[in-house]
Amino acid sequence: MTTPEVDNARLWSSLMTLSEVGRYTDERTGLLGVNRLALTDADKAGRDLVKTWFEQAGLTVRVDRIGNVYARRAGRDDSLAPVMAGSHIDSVPTGGAFDGALGVLAALEAVRSLNDAGAKTLRPIEIAFFTDEEGARFGTDMLGSAVAVGRITLQEAYSLCDETGTSVQQELSRIGYLGAAEERISPPHAYLECHVEQGPILEAAGLDLGLVTGVQAISWQQLEIHGKSAHAGTTPMDLRKDAGLVASMINLRMHEMATSGNYGQHMRATMGRVSPVPNRVNIVPGKVVCTVDLRNPDDASMARAEADLANYFDELQQSHGVHIERRQTARTDSVTFDAKVVAQVGQQMQALGYRHEPLQSGAGHDAQEMASLCATAMIFVPGQYEGISHNPREYSTPEACARGANVLLRVMRNLADEA
Amino acid sequence: MTTPEVDNARLWSSLMTLSEVGRYTDERTGLLGVNRLALTDADKAGRDLVKTWFEQAGLTVRVDRIGNVYARRAGRDDSLAPVMAGSHIDSVPTGGAFDGALGVLAALEAVRSLNDAGAKTLRPIEIAFFTDEEGARFGTDMLGSAVAVGRITLQEAYSLCDETGTSVQQELSRIGYLGAAEERISPPHAYLECHVEQGPILEAAGLDLGLVTGVQAISWQQLEIHGKSAHAGTTPMDLRKDAGLVASMINLRMHEMATSGNYGQHMRATMGRVSPVPNRVNIVPGKVVCTVDLRNPDDASMARAEADLANYFDELQQSHGVHIERRQTARTDSVTFDAKVVAQVGQQMQALGYRHEPLQSGAGHDAQEMASLCATAMIFVPGQYEGISHNPREYSTPEACARGANVLLRVMRNLADEA
Repeated sequence: MTTPEVDNARLWSSLMTLSEVGRYTDERTGLLGVNRLALTDADKAGRDLVKTWFEQAGLTVRVDRIGNVYARRAGRDDSLAPVMAGSHIDSVPTGGAFDGALGVLAALEAVRSLNDAGAKTLRPIEIAFFTDEEGARFGTDMLGSAVAVGRITLQEAYSLCDETGTSVQQELSRIGYLGAAEERISPPHAYLECHVEQGPILEAAGLDLGLVTGVQAISWQQLEIHGKSAHAGTTPMDLRKDAGLVASMINLRMHEMATSGNYGQHMRATMGRVSPVPNRVNIVPGKVVCTVDLRNPDDASMARAEADLANYFDELQQSHGVHIERRQTARTDSVTFDAKVVAQVGQQMQALGYRHEPLQSGAGHDAQEMASLCATAMIFVPGQYEGISHNPREYSTPEACARGANVLLRVMRNLADEA
Repeated sequence: MTTPEVDNARLWSSLMTLSEVGRYTDERTGLLGVNRLALTDADKAGRDLVKTWFEQAGLTVRVDRIGNVYARRAGRDDSLAPVMAGSHIDSVPTGGAFDGALGVLAALEAVRSLNDAGAKTLRPIEIAFFTDEEGARFGTDMLGSAVAVGRITLQEAYSLCDETGTSVQQELSRIGYLGAAEERISPPHAYLECHVEQGPILEAAGLDLGLVTGVQAISWQQLEIHGKSAHAGTTPMDLRKDAGLVASMINLRMHEMATSGNYGQHMRATMGRVSPVPNRVNIVPGKVVCTVDLRNPDDASMARAEADLANYFDELQQSHGVHIERRQTARTDSVTFDAKVVAQVGQQMQALGYRHEPLQSGAGHDAQEMASLCATAMIFVPGQYEGISHNPREYSTPEACARGANVLLRVMRNLADEA
């Protein structure tokens, strides 16, 4: 039997149809964006649409107690652990058509193609979409997949509230997705996720696809630098305690560390937020709130960078008369995907003639939760415009999406035929 | 005839009484502050009070067309140019009891002391308070004195509006200070101004008074640094155009320049405002609005610093792929006070046994406008708490204020007796 291929037009049509759910027009640019914030009416409408498509493809749908949706295609031996593929369909408030949706609809397209080819697999196949991957409404990202693998309990998840005080449990119930299925899942045979890169590497390197080897460690800190507010005209340089200058020094030191090679070749460092007080032209900042975002695929290098930066904060306290308070606002270790499944993904990219290279994911994904449960891998599809995402400009071509779906289809099928 | 001395208690009482006009309680600290924003009801009440005091001291008051108030004490020869002393009584919205008010009330106390001593002078003496020195409401500081010396025309000044669109002319009329006197003044014999330092130098050096030799040059620029907003997790360091990093580099470069000694020993540089967009932990700033405040007593050094910084901006545009737009928001050359009058002020400080040193003013004052018209000098009175000003914590001791007033009295009298 020949290897089936996905129907590019059908995949694209599904992506575009789903993107009409929660569609809005960006006031500034006139671009069409997607707002399917988790557990809103728009999210419900998106869920209903995709669930209908699952059913039309002959899949058996179950909804669990955290609202994750699983659609099952029977295998020749249904007692075997399924091969799972999926992602999420919720979006940030200013999202695009591809983030998350591509992973779910590429898996659906793979199943539709197997159906068209009349191809049965040994193991069952399950397509999953997980609740609130973005964390943009209830504050905790990868919520549904974290509950599915047991990192977060159902009660913790239920009690999370949005800004208006409405809880996850209330909203799940309201939109009809407080399911009855057990929220903890048995380990699948493997988990696969196709996702847009959300970064510029693949486009800049002229690659067709990215072979994702893992997710880098993430460390976020919020700093409050307390100096001394002073008159910019009358205060000599040597009598200042300039919190803004200290923030700038930290920003430069972070950048030097990231580009030095001393913490590996892939450390990233960003000071995204800087809020001086009082933030006026002629007043030396007395206080600055700023953030430190560090990423590293290597946990030991990350830990060393964090420690070296903490020492630098101490030095600055001594040398510049400031007091630096710091609070860790996020911290995850790196995740390394399964070498064998990653190799299989690479082989299929090779077989299809797609230019590809291995890379680490810079962003978090449901796959990093699933990796704690089973052999996991990801496929990255390049985005246009330097891979911009969480933005209405987010765009991947129909050809790029189809490439990702074809690799997904081949690997899913091969894994599902493994004994 | 012996040299009269000021009445410390009377001066202090006047300062405290005027500080009750526009008084407010700072919500955070519970401290009492002063809000006499120019041409508000509080400013009118302050003007009325001081005008009454002028009249009680036997002075002849005139109000000019920009609302400057002049109170004249006749001399033995009223055809001679007067000796003028003064300052302002408007405040910033979060002001204290001393900024401006001290200069006006110390001059009043000097006149009261001359009256008590029955001392006539050859030349007339005039006390002035100028309209809107702070510029905190209508955006242009030293407004009244700039009009008095002809740097700004009356029509320009009249047409300035506050945030609500209300004009200077409307407000002068409303509070009854749209006077009839000619706004341009004939050159006085000399101008003297006693003012709080608004900086930490005198307190740190343990000095009684500061002998002000001039006002440093001021250069303000607002920068808009345009980079490229990007995902902090997925964007490699070498593919970034980080506007926040560039702002930090400029801040450090400014600081290096100011402390290098290459632009004289008294250059000051401050990045007081930094506003990144979108200002979020995990997004590389795509744009930063920030400010550059440079000060230097030496005009040539200032011009060189501005040029070197502009070259650095060009370098950064090349090296970091950003675009930097800059707008000059304020620029004044340095002002050097009259050597002879400054020497006379120093002699009186010496005669009274007050520890003093020469220094440049870091802030702008009405005296710098008057210096374009006549021989000018200033006396600085130290402030407590590192000279904090524009803040309810602003405080100078009764003794320090009296010292400034005594020097002012002696120099005013000597100058007024010069033929």
